[in-house]
Amino acid sequence: VTDASGAFAALHRHERPFLLPNAWDFASAAALTRVGFRAIGTTSLGVAASAGKPDAAAAIRAENLRLAESLSRLPVMVSVDIEAGYSDDPDEVASYAREIARTGAVGVNIEDGEPNGLLGEPALLREKLRAVKAAAPRLFLNARTDTFWLGSAGGADRLQETIARTSSYVAAGADGIFVPGLSYHEDVLALSGAVAAPLNVLFAPGKASLEQLGAAGARRVSTGSLLFRMSLGAAAGAAERIRSGDLLEPNACPTYGEVQAMVLTTGDR
Amino acid sequence: VTDASGAFAALHRHERPFLLPNAWDFASAAALTRVGFRAIGTTSLGVAASAGKPDAAAAIRAENLRLAESLSRLPVMVSVDIEAGYSDDPDEVASYAREIARTGAVGVNIEDGEPNGLLGEPALLREKLRAVKAAAPRLFLNARTDTFWLGSAGGADRLQETIARTSSYVAAGADGIFVPGLSYHEDVLALSGAVAAPLNVLFAPGKASLEQLGAAGARRVSTGSLLFRMSLGAAAGAAERIRSGDLLEPNACPTYGEVQAMVLTTGDR
Repeated sequence: VTDASGAFAALHRHERPFLLPNAWDFASAAALTRVGFRAIGTTSLGVAASAGKPDAAAAIRAENLRLAESLSRLPVMVSVDIEAGYSDDPDEVASYAREIARTGAVGVNIEDGEPNGLLGEPALLREKLRAVKAAAPRLFLNARTDTFWLGSAGGADRLQETIARTSSYVAAGADGIFVPGLSYHEDVLALSGAVAAPLNVLFAPGKASLEQLGAAGARRVSTGSLLFRMSLGAAAGAAERIRSGDLLEPNACPTYGEVQAMVLTTGDR
Repeated sequence: VTDASGAFAALHRHERPFLLPNAWDFASAAALTRVGFRAIGTTSLGVAASAGKPDAAAAIRAENLRLAESLSRLPVMVSVDIEAGYSDDPDEVASYAREIARTGAVGVNIEDGEPNGLLGEPALLREKLRAVKAAAPRLFLNARTDTFWLGSAGGADRLQETIARTSSYVAAGADGIFVPGLSYHEDVLALSGAVAAPLNVLFAPGKASLEQLGAAGARRVSTGSLLFRMSLGAAAGAAERIRSGDLLEPNACPTYGEVQAMVLTTGDR
């Protein structure tokens, strides 16, 4: 476990940021592992919607843990999105993070967005970070701020608030920071220059490539719910085309046998 | 429930066959419902692989029931693939089918392929069909034979064996028959002419359109594991493109808000 955690932290030290694609179930994680990713994250929207539950509502505490357990069979490093930790009590959050760590996961994402849809107090996330760090010191602790998604400030105020929050999260024990919603070169550049921890940003189609995000200082690029939403779009779109009379192209998707083989894959991570 | 079952049976009476796309979790079912499908099936490969279990191994008895329960919230008719019924005891299969029917599902698929990967005795499937029909008379009972996938016979012998099996399944109570692996016009034509129940075939990309399958006599066309496999291919393929430096096109997949709305959808079926 120590080696895996060290290897995961090391992925954050390259000038070209590493892409952490987000899975939502065993099959999607296995498919990403099969195409060569050494590390994957999870998407709370995907995990929740697959189970018929809303995202960001603290509804998938058990599903997330079950998923982390099942992913431990795959030869891939796993970082789990635990939303705001499913509790306002730092000790409960720490105890959950310890359970996640026991599955062999190498990291967690924990955020200051609250299940009520509001931006939470930074002091609360700091307490949770301290508690998690003490309970599961080997987890790569990625602190997410939702200032860009949920905050009321804009422009320079928003950027200052983001720098203040994330710097305080690093001081409280975060190993990395995650700011979704940034889409501009200047914001990424300003943040990566101001905060002393690897910056994780969200990939946004059509906006910036991995290289461009890396040049601005990002060290980890994750896909959030994008791959999950693309998979739903692909399935529904193909069904619509068949319904309309299309033959479809003899397809380039995994075969039945390849999917069965993925499921039977086990290995060390 | 009576109305829904009647409405589902009625879908099998049109010259243009109806497309029954197969879902594997709540989100895929919701996405298919959102693009206008009135009825969906499930794919045992998809349900199994999502949970990290092998297909056709009788491993997802509980997962299938949980899925059927969650799908009851969607305004769509659901037919559940129960493989060989997860037991050799017809009473146990009937009791499981009754549980599935209680979720509001309108149909089940049950097959003579066995968890050991061999083609089972037709007498056993007939007993299961009789027991299920008695226990859950409103379920549309789709009897699948795996003669084309698992049988040792070929050519005319295979076709004769398939006609004999499926005719006996109809006599035992099946409302429809399903023969995966048929890809030729003549086989579909011969089977639909010889068996007195709606014929369900599997869509195969590049082989035949819905119209062509209907002209040969098919009344239901399902997608099996195809949409699930395409969704995995889409997710892994997009991740590979991002990794290689692509920007991706600002995409045509459902937005975060649309997925959240799907999950909150409820309605009568």
